[in-house]
Amino acid sequence: MLLQMLDYLGVAVFAVTGGIIASRKQLDFIAFLFFATLTGIGGGTLRDLLLGVPVFWVENEAYLLVCLIVSIFLWFFAYRIEQFSKPLRWADAIGISAYSVMGAAKALTVGDTVLVAVLMGVSTATFGGILRDTIAREPPSIVKPEIYVSAAFAGAGSFVVLMQLGAPQTVSAALAAALALLLRGGAILRGWSLPGYRAKGRR
Amino acid sequence: MLLQMLDYLGVAVFAVTGGIIASRKQLDFIAFLFFATLTGIGGGTLRDLLLGVPVFWVENEAYLLVCLIVSIFLWFFAYRIEQFSKPLRWADAIGISAYSVMGAAKALTVGDTVLVAVLMGVSTATFGGILRDTIAREPPSIVKPEIYVSAAFAGAGSFVVLMQLGAPQTVSAALAAALALLLRGGAILRGWSLPGYRAKGRR
Amino acid sequence: MLLQMLDYLGVAVFAVTGGIIASRKQLDFIAFLFFATLTGIGGGTLRDLLLGVPVFWVENEAYLLVCLIVSIFLWFFAYRIEQFSKPLRWADAIGISAYSVMGAAKALTVGDTVLVAVLMGVSTATFGGILRDTIAREPPSIVKPEIYVSAAFAGAGSFVVLMQLGAPQTVSAALAAALALLLRGGAILRGWSLPGYRAKGRR
Repeated sequence: MLLQMLDYLGVAVFAVTGGIIASRKQLDFIAFLFFATLTGIGGGTLRDLLLGVPVFWVENEAYLLVCLIVSIFLWFFAYRIEQFSKPLRWADAIGISAYSVMGAAKALTVGDTVLVAVLMGVSTATFGGILRDTIAREPPSIVKPEIYVSAAFAGAGSFVVLMQLGAPQTVSAALAAALALLLRGGAILRGWSLPGYRAKGRR
Repeated sequence: MLLQMLDYLGVAVFAVTGGIIASRKQLDFIAFLFFATLTGIGGGTLRDLLLGVPVFWVENEAYLLVCLIVSIFLWFFAYRIEQFSKPLRWADAIGISAYSVMGAAKALTVGDTVLVAVLMGVSTATFGGILRDTIAREPPSIVKPEIYVSAAFAGAGSFVVLMQLGAPQTVSAALAAALALLLRGGAILRGWSLPGYRAKGRR
Repeated sequence: MLLQMLDYLGVAVFAVTGGIIASRKQLDFIAFLFFATLTGIGGGTLRDLLLGVPVFWVENEAYLLVCLIVSIFLWFFAYRIEQFSKPLRWADAIGISAYSVMGAAKALTVGDTVLVAVLMGVSTATFGGILRDTIAREPPSIVKPEIYVSAAFAGAGSFVVLMQLGAPQTVSAALAAALALLLRGGAILRGWSLPGYRAKGRR
């Protein structure tokens, strides 16, 4: 149940980030649909292709309806969302948190090993945003010094560890998603980052 | 029959756009092959992966021969094609028209719902060009204000609606492809566009 | 045996190129992991999706461990690797040679035709690097005049031809990989290139 909710939440908030990009570039409504759908379902699509299972939105078109509704909503209200502080980055942060857990959970369900499950969580959480930024020609968050992929990694990793320790799925998912959101939120609010590579000076 | 022709036509004209990009960058013959093949089969490859069916050119290598022939032709005659007005954009327009219908048709054949079929049409029609522009570092057409994705959307959408209304497949395909080409042609010739998002001023 | 070694070698050296990019951008350790893994397994992942076989690192997570070990190694020693001349390009060259042969070999094993096998070799060899350069926003090697895709093409093509002529697999793989490395090495050391397209002046 919580996982199912995280799944729709992830699609919806990533769709919001796609729609915000379209509104900032003053594109037309079809472009809103395009970017919202691309970002909303991109990560999960990659996950399903890699796992070799049917693509989730081909099985259940409710996910496409979510993207459609988000697009319509943003077409009318994007300017109000922009009155919040950094709405795109916060929606992206919620998406990363939800998807990193969902990606890992689906891989475990299919019977994959823990290492594969963690990688599925990370790619699911980051791929939609990478697609969005690449096609819109925005600088991708992955090459910025801030914590970004690390948050997805923490979410997927802690979920897998908690599940291995025998924690109930709902508890594991809630804790792991909260951890990912906390880390990414700290990066947005306070610029949290991990130490970057320093040539010569070792480490 | 018409669908089969649209399929080869789509591959061929998208391959032409890839070859034109290679010629404008004065690349070598292998790069002609690379860009022609990437653009020619990119969209249909995505469609087949998403539908979970065997990739079309792995099943039938005639499509690869089409890309090879187009590459050889362009290596000798790209400079003549450039004497026409906007050859890349017109070839791309024909490709979008053919592929938006083919993508939707194949999804319907596999038994998918109308919403999924429309999305397959749109992604099939636009993905090859997005790959081409991303790798060649050209500005992708999707973020320009002109009608582009909208044409693919109109082609795929009208095909699906006509089929649902019981129109014969050939008629539906011909009308839908003509509509997509008309819309994209208007954008090329007269700069047709849909209204873009305006902050504050609502809609 | 040789093929198996080429496979791990290809993953490892492509992972090295991803790690070098991360070190040059002074990113954190998780970004090292991200770029090393993306580049290391990107090409083979595309190959397996296109062939419709299970993705290799989902089946055997040893490949992910290779990427992890490479990332740790580079986090400590990237600055020493940079003391060599053009380390990124040489590692990339070895990767292209190994992967062009592996990609073609796997396609032949699955029973595909020679044309498909050559294309699989080329896409396997080049896709990881294209992903790496696109996401890191580096100019992709494919649009430079130097021999690059051509080396992958020579490797995959010569392997397929030798196999068709009845040569033993090990001999075919060794010769083909050596040819690809020779061509790409000549491009790195001496700027070898094929003649580029010249408008008007034909060919």
